[in-house]
Amino acid sequence: MKPDSLPMTALNSKQGTVCIFGTGDFGRSLGLRLLQAGYEVVYGSRNPKNSDLLPKGAKVMPHEEASQKASVIIVAVHRENYEFLASLTQALEGKILVDISNNLKKHQYTESNAEYLSMLVPRAVVVKAFNTISAWALQSGRLDANRQVLICGNHAEAKQALVDMSHSLGLTPVDRGSLRVASELEDLPHQLFPLWRLPLWISAGLLGAFFLYVLIRDVVYAGVVDNKDTSFRIMISLANKVFPMVALVMLALCYLPGIIAAFLQLYNGTKYRRFPDWLDRWMLCRKQLGLLALAFAFLHVLYTLVIPIRYFVFYKRANTYISLIKENKTYEFNAMWAWRSDSYLSMGIIGFVLFVLLGITSLPSVSNSLNWREFNFIQSKLGYLTLLLCTAHAVLYGWDKFLHASGFKWWMPSSYMVSLVVPCIVLVLKTVLIMPCLDRTITRIRQGWERQGKRGKDKNAKSSQPLIL
Amino acid sequence: MKPDSLPMTALNSKQGTVCIFGTGDFGRSLGLRLLQAGYEVVYGSRNPKNSDLLPKGAKVMPHEEASQKASVIIVAVHRENYEFLASLTQALEGKILVDISNNLKKHQYTESNAEYLSMLVPRAVVVKAFNTISAWALQSGRLDANRQVLICGNHAEAKQALVDMSHSLGLTPVDRGSLRVASELEDLPHQLFPLWRLPLWISAGLLGAFFLYVLIRDVVYAGVVDNKDTSFRIMISLANKVFPMVALVMLALCYLPGIIAAFLQLYNGTKYRRFPDWLDRWMLCRKQLGLLALAFAFLHVLYTLVIPIRYFVFYKRANTYISLIKENKTYEFNAMWAWRSDSYLSMGIIGFVLFVLLGITSLPSVSNSLNWREFNFIQSKLGYLTLLLCTAHAVLYGWDKFLHASGFKWWMPSSYMVSLVVPCIVLVLKTVLIMPCLDRTITRIRQGWERQGKRGKDKNAKSSQPLIL
Amino acid sequence: MKPDSLPMTALNSKQGTVCIFGTGDFGRSLGLRLLQAGYEVVYGSRNPKNSDLLPKGAKVMPHEEASQKASVIIVAVHRENYEFLASLTQALEGKILVDISNNLKKHQYTESNAEYLSMLVPRAVVVKAFNTISAWALQSGRLDANRQVLICGNHAEAKQALVDMSHSLGLTPVDRGSLRVASELEDLPHQLFPLWRLPLWISAGLLGAFFLYVLIRDVVYAGVVDNKDTSFRIMISLANKVFPMVALVMLALCYLPGIIAAFLQLYNGTKYRRFPDWLDRWMLCRKQLGLLALAFAFLHVLYTLVIPIRYFVFYKRANTYISLIKENKTYEFNAMWAWRSDSYLSMGIIGFVLFVLLGITSLPSVSNSLNWREFNFIQSKLGYLTLLLCTAHAVLYGWDKFLHASGFKWWMPSSYMVSLVVPCIVLVLKTVLIMPCLDRTITRIRQGWERQGKRGKDKNAKSSQPLIL
Repeated sequence: MKPDSLPMTALNSKQGTVCIFGTGDFGRSLGLRLLQAGYEVVYGSRNPKNSDLLPKGAKVMPHEEASQKASVIIVAVHRENYEFLASLTQALEGKILVDISNNLKKHQYTESNAEYLSMLVPRAVVVKAFNTISAWALQSGRLDANRQVLICGNHAEAKQALVDMSHSLGLTPVDRGSLRVASELEDLPHQLFPLWRLPLWISAGLLGAFFLYVLIRDVVYAGVVDNKDTSFRIMISLANKVFPMVALVMLALCYLPGIIAAFLQLYNGTKYRRFPDWLDRWMLCRKQLGLLALAFAFLHVLYTLVIPIRYFVFYKRANTYISLIKENKTYEFNAMWAWRSDSYLSMGIIGFVLFVLLGITSLPSVSNSLNWREFNFIQSKLGYLTLLLCTAHAVLYGWDKFLHASGFKWWMPSSYMVSLVVPCIVLVLKTVLIMPCLDRTITRIRQGWERQGKRGKDKNAKSSQPLIL
Repeated sequence: MKPDSLPMTALNSKQGTVCIFGTGDFGRSLGLRLLQAGYEVVYGSRNPKNSDLLPKGAKVMPHEEASQKASVIIVAVHRENYEFLASLTQALEGKILVDISNNLKKHQYTESNAEYLSMLVPRAVVVKAFNTISAWALQSGRLDANRQVLICGNHAEAKQALVDMSHSLGLTPVDRGSLRVASELEDLPHQLFPLWRLPLWISAGLLGAFFLYVLIRDVVYAGVVDNKDTSFRIMISLANKVFPMVALVMLALCYLPGIIAAFLQLYNGTKYRRFPDWLDRWMLCRKQLGLLALAFAFLHVLYTLVIPIRYFVFYKRANTYISLIKENKTYEFNAMWAWRSDSYLSMGIIGFVLFVLLGITSLPSVSNSLNWREFNFIQSKLGYLTLLLCTAHAVLYGWDKFLHASGFKWWMPSSYMVSLVVPCIVLVLKTVLIMPCLDRTITRIRQGWERQGKRGKDKNAKSSQPLIL
Repeated sequence: MKPDSLPMTALNSKQGTVCIFGTGDFGRSLGLRLLQAGYEVVYGSRNPKNSDLLPKGAKVMPHEEASQKASVIIVAVHRENYEFLASLTQALEGKILVDISNNLKKHQYTESNAEYLSMLVPRAVVVKAFNTISAWALQSGRLDANRQVLICGNHAEAKQALVDMSHSLGLTPVDRGSLRVASELEDLPHQLFPLWRLPLWISAGLLGAFFLYVLIRDVVYAGVVDNKDTSFRIMISLANKVFPMVALVMLALCYLPGIIAAFLQLYNGTKYRRFPDWLDRWMLCRKQLGLLALAFAFLHVLYTLVIPIRYFVFYKRANTYISLIKENKTYEFNAMWAWRSDSYLSMGIIGFVLFVLLGITSLPSVSNSLNWREFNFIQSKLGYLTLLLCTAHAVLYGWDKFLHASGFKWWMPSSYMVSLVVPCIVLVLKTVLIMPCLDRTITRIRQGWERQGKRGKDKNAKSSQPLIL
């Protein structure tokens, strides 16, 4: 519990004074927000007369004078102009200097701006903050996007001052650790979906390759061999072949690296050996691979469901009916076909619903509410079930086509066969891995056990850094 | 790092004692939860004998005596009865008074209850907390909804005491700043989707207007001119015309204010001039407009996909087939129609999937994990792409209908033409804005640049407050 | 504001030293992460020579010596081996001992491991932390799942040290209160969806029962009476009867306990009486019931939308057309049927969209952004509207089937009638409850009012603990 008596000075305290060095766009935006939140704002400027654009209520004075007014000084100046701060060393002693700067590109300098500032003014306490907030967002007060102020620094109390300030501005402070993290924070605003790049390239590659394959097999072949123009099929029929192929292969690619890793661990007899870099990178982006696969599966679902609305389908069915009647035939019912068609649709539907469930549990707020065991259960057990159902969906769709020569045009197998290669490999390897003997060994390895005779080798191996599944 | 030795007193500390003034519903519920969390609870009451309803384990005593037992006093009393606290000034000196009160309506008093309490008992430290938690939720311990305890106050240590208490109760404390925020917190429980009001009214207005338009054009016209009763079409055919119209127009309305703002900034030559209020309000609710548009698009998708299951469609198709056969015709294939029908469906599907993606990234936990650049990329780049695809979807749906007189009934153009007006305006204006010359100027303006000769005017203008996009 | 001068020692502080007792898997993984985050790591070991597996850069020494190097000591040892710590009492005086242990099963010991540790070494400060983080996750640095470090302890400063450490490791610390919570935290990793169990059993039970019912009524009956094999209908036709039945009944089951509770409160004349245990448990899992119902509704939607793609449907329609033509008939249009079919689809679609909306607002990050009134509005008002629409959807689907003998096979009513029982009961009871007289009484009871003459009885009743709706 708190002390029974609190110092009375705090009771009628206003928010205090903040000093801002620099009268640029960000300095002005931040100053305005600080004023609105009840702070007093003092600008430090070389040319204190020229204060036209500054928000009303703020004072402007020379740097040295301004710095004496407040314990927190926000340095809203480009790194290139930091040198003048070295001359203020005495005035800045013990002050909290807030580095809010960003660079024009990643890794522009060897050390981060905040660390550079800390070296320039060694007797001040440097905190990195606000660099991930846009001036636009601050001005507008309409922070639809990220409200998080990422803060780092070596001094707890100085960080606390920034935490309080962020709260007063209606932002959410997040303590990210020591000043060493600063260069990471300075690179953040330059990131554009770094973890999504590889999966996006993979999906683009698969999309292009499969489209070309299907185009040649379905449209070009029909054009050359049968002399028929079926190019109108590109928009839906072909798209609805390519999307499920990409979705299925990418879903399988989510699970392949885990399987490769398990076999590597079995081979190495230890988990304390580094994986090859490509495997590490691949494992890092499994979640993104899965979400892209889900997007393609969603496209496939919609493309499938519009089939009966299509003009082409209406035309084809009309002519089927008409020719049946003309030939005075009835349409014979084939119970096996009914079973197959319904099973194939059922597998697809249940697989898709499970896939959506996997997608929902990867939302940050949902995965945060799961414990490790629950997350693992969903992403691994349900994940493999989804893959199994979707593979079964593709197998039932194709059925016995692979037996018939008509399934091969120009020696190219039907598209569903192509899409089944990777998923089948994954499922077979997984079946091997869950056999009791291998499963037991892997479980022991992952609990830290190591196979005898591997230790010596390991020492000379790449590193003793622990690694993962 | 922490000191090597910690005071030993803290080790066997219980949670401490909390005093509650008032034995009403909320006081009792909170007291019970505090007892369950290991606190000792002392009630301050005028009539300490009358303690039947109080949770077991709590003590009751007169206000003055009770206040001496604890450093934190929860004032579970209506604002109207605060005056008696003024008589306890001495007993309350240095205590943390927790104001948990709400008013019956918004802005009932000029100052917030917490500030009023602070004026009444100037020597105590007032913290506002718990007013957004319902007694219902506290009692039940089943907080499915918001577990956040919003806390504000001028004294950091006093707030920390409330943060600790909230944690012990299994709630999530959120520091919202100084006591000035109290009136905002007191208005919170009265809010019912404030940002959704305008978008809901807009969508209701559009819904009504478009429904009337389509009703007259499709049902009334058929009834009057052709003397046919087509009122059964209301449930699905008409709904499936109205919903996509509303969705498309509202999606366009998300992007229109940004465009208007850009032209205003170009005209003003500066971003440091306030926008008109209506534009500000409009911009504030873009996210909500977009989400409502997504809901209507979702309805449109479902209404479209059930088409082939409809009895009416079955009937119509049956009769088409029957009449084709009776007239001994076959259905001629038209490749252009196939292209058009498939393209229109494809545009719609991809547009909808992108729209869903936009919706997902506006979930709080997802948008919090994006940096500014990523959020901007999705909401602006992908947003315009979505609008473009959905507009193309509508154009391809209508095709050349606007050329034919049959598209106009009673001089009313076909509904798809009506829905295309706003989206086309937005897309044309956006095309103008991204032309290099204008784009460069706007970028410079948004980085703080101002056109010469505008400064003088500005001074006399509304305000120098910075504004947004 | 902060003091103008900060102690300069903090400026070039590294992260400090952490001591780890135990060189098992978790100790090694945590040590490596700490080293990577800039801490110095000292292992305490019985056999300091045997340090092959330890991460590079860490030192190893005997327990007593190691404990002198740091103020934070992580006890990465099984509870069974805690006794040796009792012999180090002196060395551990005033140290922060971090208990990271888990047990093999729930409730293995009477007191939690952390409390046991606290009793063994009474002069150290024990904090529970990291037990919910997996070694796997720590090693890999790929925390897709839960990054939360749940911390509990009786000493605020000690907890703060762990909060700081968690931040440095890129994890999200969450203060969960005093050491008494430790046993709860130790049970957490053993949980596998505890709140989902009951709803999953209920849905499995309903699924099985309804499937059997429909199987007998549709397939077995056709086989025995009509001697037709319709088993192919299991995959889609039957599934698409069972799923909506389960969804509707489970949606109704979400609202039934609230209604029972209201009647109980009316009967008791007070809200301060405990509900029966089964009702408490039922109410606790309403959210999960609702989400499962949504999953089944989603399945129903997909199963319905694939209808026109099914081979069986294609066959049936073809034969309908053929026989119509052969008998030289046209298909007569029935406006009432068109109305009914379209209304039934419309109700279903709007009901489903509202249901999805309910699902979205139960996402943690969304429900956290709603105030109590908003959450209540959506979950209760919109919830009942959803139930009403879905019930209307089922009623319109069945229409007048219940009047005809053909609707009953072997005296078994049509499946839609079975699914309507619970929803209709809920809706009727709700209608009774919102009648002004009852509504007023319930509102007063929930505000704390009690009916006269109930107090005496209450005292002898189960408990005076407040309860909920």
